[in-house]
Amino acid sequence: MQKYVVRNIERPSKELIDQFAEHDSTTVYEAQGKIGLMAPYMKPLIAGRRVCGPAVTVVCPAGDNLMIHVAIEVCQPGDVLVITTIGESVHGMIGELIVTALERRGVAGVVIDAGIRDIAQIRKMGFPIWSKAVYGLGTTKSRGGWVNAPAVCAGTEVHPGDIILADDDGVVVVRKSDAEFALNATRKRVEDEEKTKARIVRGELSLDFYSLREVLQRQNVVYYDNIGEIEASK
Amino acid sequence: MQKYVVRNIERPSKELIDQFAEHDSTTVYEAQGKIGLMAPYMKPLIAGRRVCGPAVTVVCPAGDNLMIHVAIEVCQPGDVLVITTIGESVHGMIGELIVTALERRGVAGVVIDAGIRDIAQIRKMGFPIWSKAVYGLGTTKSRGGWVNAPAVCAGTEVHPGDIILADDDGVVVVRKSDAEFALNATRKRVEDEEKTKARIVRGELSLDFYSLREVLQRQNVVYYDNIGEIEASK
Amino acid sequence: MQKYVVRNIERPSKELIDQFAEHDSTTVYEAQGKIGLMAPYMKPLIAGRRVCGPAVTVVCPAGDNLMIHVAIEVCQPGDVLVITTIGESVHGMIGELIVTALERRGVAGVVIDAGIRDIAQIRKMGFPIWSKAVYGLGTTKSRGGWVNAPAVCAGTEVHPGDIILADDDGVVVVRKSDAEFALNATRKRVEDEEKTKARIVRGELSLDFYSLREVLQRQNVVYYDNIGEIEASK
Amino acid sequence: MQKYVVRNIERPSKELIDQFAEHDSTTVYEAQGKIGLMAPYMKPLIAGRRVCGPAVTVVCPAGDNLMIHVAIEVCQPGDVLVITTIGESVHGMIGELIVTALERRGVAGVVIDAGIRDIAQIRKMGFPIWSKAVYGLGTTKSRGGWVNAPAVCAGTEVHPGDIILADDDGVVVVRKSDAEFALNATRKRVEDEEKTKARIVRGELSLDFYSLREVLQRQNVVYYDNIGEIEASK
Amino acid sequence: MQKYVVRNIERPSKELIDQFAEHDSTTVYEAQGKIGLMAPYMKPLIAGRRVCGPAVTVVCPAGDNLMIHVAIEVCQPGDVLVITTIGESVHGMIGELIVTALERRGVAGVVIDAGIRDIAQIRKMGFPIWSKAVYGLGTTKSRGGWVNAPAVCAGTEVHPGDIILADDDGVVVVRKSDAEFALNATRKRVEDEEKTKARIVRGELSLDFYSLREVLQRQNVVYYDNIGEIEASK
Amino acid sequence: MQKYVVRNIERPSKELIDQFAEHDSTTVYEAQGKIGLMAPYMKPLIAGRRVCGPAVTVVCPAGDNLMIHVAIEVCQPGDVLVITTIGESVHGMIGELIVTALERRGVAGVVIDAGIRDIAQIRKMGFPIWSKAVYGLGTTKSRGGWVNAPAVCAGTEVHPGDIILADDDGVVVVRKSDAEFALNATRKRVEDEEKTKARIVRGELSLDFYSLREVLQRQNVVYYDNIGEIEASK
Repeated sequence: MQKYVVRNIERPSKELIDQFAEHDSTTVYEAQGKIGLMAPYMKPLIAGRRVCGPAVTVVCPAGDNLMIHVAIEVCQPGDVLVITTIGESVHGMIGELIVTALERRGVAGVVIDAGIRDIAQIRKMGFPIWSKAVYGLGTTKSRGGWVNAPAVCAGTEVHPGDIILADDDGVVVVRKSDAEFALNATRKRVEDEEKTKARIVRGELSLDFYSLREVLQRQNVVYYDNIGEIEASK
Repeated sequence: MQKYVVRNIERPSKELIDQFAEHDSTTVYEAQGKIGLMAPYMKPLIAGRRVCGPAVTVVCPAGDNLMIHVAIEVCQPGDVLVITTIGESVHGMIGELIVTALERRGVAGVVIDAGIRDIAQIRKMGFPIWSKAVYGLGTTKSRGGWVNAPAVCAGTEVHPGDIILADDDGVVVVRKSDAEFALNATRKRVEDEEKTKARIVRGELSLDFYSLREVLQRQNVVYYDNIGEIEASK
Repeated sequence: MQKYVVRNIERPSKELIDQFAEHDSTTVYEAQGKIGLMAPYMKPLIAGRRVCGPAVTVVCPAGDNLMIHVAIEVCQPGDVLVITTIGESVHGMIGELIVTALERRGVAGVVIDAGIRDIAQIRKMGFPIWSKAVYGLGTTKSRGGWVNAPAVCAGTEVHPGDIILADDDGVVVVRKSDAEFALNATRKRVEDEEKTKARIVRGELSLDFYSLREVLQRQNVVYYDNIGEIEASK
Repeated sequence: MQKYVVRNIERPSKELIDQFAEHDSTTVYEAQGKIGLMAPYMKPLIAGRRVCGPAVTVVCPAGDNLMIHVAIEVCQPGDVLVITTIGESVHGMIGELIVTALERRGVAGVVIDAGIRDIAQIRKMGFPIWSKAVYGLGTTKSRGGWVNAPAVCAGTEVHPGDIILADDDGVVVVRKSDAEFALNATRKRVEDEEKTKARIVRGELSLDFYSLREVLQRQNVVYYDNIGEIEASK
Repeated sequence: MQKYVVRNIERPSKELIDQFAEHDSTTVYEAQGKIGLMAPYMKPLIAGRRVCGPAVTVVCPAGDNLMIHVAIEVCQPGDVLVITTIGESVHGMIGELIVTALERRGVAGVVIDAGIRDIAQIRKMGFPIWSKAVYGLGTTKSRGGWVNAPAVCAGTEVHPGDIILADDDGVVVVRKSDAEFALNATRKRVEDEEKTKARIVRGELSLDFYSLREVLQRQNVVYYDNIGEIEASK
Repeated sequence: MQKYVVRNIERPSKELIDQFAEHDSTTVYEAQGKIGLMAPYMKPLIAGRRVCGPAVTVVCPAGDNLMIHVAIEVCQPGDVLVITTIGESVHGMIGELIVTALERRGVAGVVIDAGIRDIAQIRKMGFPIWSKAVYGLGTTKSRGGWVNAPAVCAGTEVHPGDIILADDDGVVVVRKSDAEFALNATRKRVEDEEKTKARIVRGELSLDFYSLREVLQRQNVVYYDNIGEIEASK
């Protein structure tokens, strides 16, 4: 298949990105219909950091980072670089130098379904990365791939320009075409959760306000006052 | 098998709990005869936190957290909620809302053989959790299970009211019926370890005070002054 | 095979060690020809710590730490204790007491292809360890092995006196006999990387200064201005 | 905790065992309420073999098989030996010699949450084993444990005398006290499945006979005639 | 996002399928540019079986197989059912009954990024499946998803109607739009490999006919006659 | 470090090899002092096959098989090719073509700490391989490494000319210099095991002939006649 680089992609508006940036990955994933969540092996390098931006995608052959060098030139300020490999890999595909270049381009963060290295330096720079592994193993810079092609990252499809939202819980992808719907659903969910939280804080039980006692009954769950009663009931 | 909830369980006394709370999970595990230790994949959400309390057990079908909602009502201040699933699961079974409810009930902490989510918020609340995974993947609230039935959590049997002691090293379970014995053995061990530590600090060698030199001899381990001697000895 | 302990090993000079200590594990691994890197499952107990020193090697039967007690006596200030097992193991082979003894001997750190325990205490002591697991599971002290024999740790060969360099990225081994070459190559690499970094900071692209555009051409990677062009090109 | 051996256990009747032996592990697990299934890492040594019998349980310290030697004497013809370790282990805990001894006692099979070895010979003998690993790593014979204590095997509780049913799908445990109920439920399920199978063979769709079309509707799943319609519907 | 079922998809011609069916998954993957290969955890249930056909895709919530029941009705003879879940899962999503239904529809095989069960029966039926796990764990039939939507299976994107080729080495996906190109490239590769094989059988060395000796030279690999020479060369 | 190929290595005599070939990997591993066993993830491609021969070692950069092509020329009839990578890898490093070349050279088998492919064809050829993975992922042929250097394969050191013995249980390495000792110890062990087996067949218990009843006593293991007695004893 033709290997290629797409220089310009359609990005969601700054306003839209900013609005998503206020929300949590888990909330957005739930709100948009429980889709778009990357696999749980994607871990943040720096706890407590959050990133939200349009995806620039990179697809490399396992063990080669040539296309990441290509992607640097294509990135715009605020972008999130989403890097995947063809074939499983834990190579340390990016380190201090590439991160320096990305930071200079204004890239907001990196999501990489492979390894990273120089993590002490990257932590010092405060540059946020979600990765599968930390590993010094080096790569070559000699094999072609794709920049801004559709990609599969940590089990989830990502298209260039999709919104990437990453925090301590993980990484979620919002399709450009779903963004408006997802944002509205997210706001609705946040509102609902705030109401729910208020009820919990007041001391109400989820058993009651979610009407779960009926579910328990339908599921034939019985209550005993103490363990002795179980024996007695047999 | 009948699904059920036991409302009231026998809990060890506050005094007993407080006495265990001063000790480390590893020490208690060793002292009670090298039993009761959960699998090493159970990791603390917040390093440096410790929890000790009686177990309220929850057994859910994989992917459903209905019974956790049920358990909230059953918990007493100081309890440790021990959550397991039937069938392997990394679903994010509890998040900010459930933790808020548990905190309000005075629950001391959670030990869960599955996933959690909203970890940034939970860290902020300072609520201690030991879990197998962090994953946003959502659950249903529709399938029955058990609260306060005997359970298997991370490879270890837990009965309602057993003492759960969790710290950075992991999670250990002390059977109610073994508690007195275990506490005495723990104190004895702590005392011994303090003496041992004092000897080490004074410069004594464990080779000597454990009489390991004789073991070495029985095991036919020989000493060479340098690597050259090995060749020479052949 | 004869089990043994070698009391005295040849160590690299303090000067050499100090010079390596300034460099990163990843840089040294790359500079010496992409060799000597331990598997990525070796994780630092304390982020941000670095260790560099000559290896004292310990080979234990899985589940027994007798030979670690033996090794304590053999260690010199500045040494790095490299512990491996025959057969896979995640036992907690060292804890507070052994670390206290090692610290008293002036040991600089531990690299262990197995488990550790008492990590809260060890963190408090600030003693640096790289390990495969954290697990309270206890060991026996009854089976012989080797101290200062050649060993395989996390997939990498280690000989007594080899230089061990460990940081957040992982652990690298430099053979005594390669040390001078490796140091020179490391310095050369650091110099090159600094120049490269300066170019990046000035805004130059790696695509240009590594001449990667030619590689792209040879790899038949084509540029499109936008996604629409791809369709049009078919 | 006191280490012990219980010489005599209550076993289900031969008739009961024989009736379970006709059924599949998956069917029994489902019928008894989706409980009792061991973790999926338990694999049969010999495909196509089935075993059903009362459990004799063995709990060993990881890396030691002393208690298996003890269990041999306790086993009766038709028993299934269920072996677990305290602490994770993949040691090769049983090989040709122990299997020869077990076979001579008439033991029906082994379920072991650890490793086995001499598998070529055991396959030749045709002795059925379900295990977590194949590994030559040897054990000691020096540390005490339990025979016929309650045990946790592959995440599932097993009591001495429980019925163990193992086949290519895995291993299921039926509590003695649930056996009658479980058998009836299993027969009911088999009957239902046969009827269902007959309907499928006749060409009926599960969508219809399970009334799933209504579920689809409630779940807001819509039908499109072709992919083009999706675009058109937006 | 709207959950849906697409009833009719565009399938490659029978001729095209038959031509791919003669080739190996590895050869096709290489020939089409080293893309389209599923992760190596996908294992055939029955060694030696091969399947080639157009993909009907199913996307289920983890732990629910409702949409598989839906897919049965949509399948045509010769189709390969590609089943994935949203969120990681090893549930046994299909067993004897579903396979019976699929066989009756003439489905050629199943590729499932989750678990299967009743494998003894399915082996007896000879129905080919590639799966991630074997596990009895049951599913619900209550949550909606997608049939014939784009899907990600074992890390690889699959669109309805793509050609799925599976054999002992694994599973490869050929995009409908790449099929002609991929087939030609495959034939070319097969031809080349046959020539290469003939040269090997004649005793020629790949070092020579691939001109690898020059590569060795460029890579500074030196030849020594024996190990002694290495020492001498230092 | 200098990359190199050693053309000629010292091989153990045919007689020695033939004598080891009669024994099992597990027996030899035990007899030579419980050393030399590779990690349990090394699995035979063809069950029931055995291989014994001198090691020709290959060390490749992860993802490149250039040095395997080099090794073909160096192999002699009866050799076992031991292939490892620098850095973890599951690439399919060898397939039908390389196996054809190896077979033509009379190579007895392959032990590879990485992946293989074309397994249906290799099974048909009956060529024995022990590998970590099956994966179609292709390699490059462009990066230098070592042939007949010391290597670490599946956690175990291998030197060129060491004896490799592989069967269904796994792979064991016997150092050339230990071969005579190991062979004698193996014979002694086989003899002992045969006597032990005879005693078992006659009905003697290992508890008795290993004097394990005393060990039990020292370990404070008590016997109860039945479960009721345990309660009574408390």
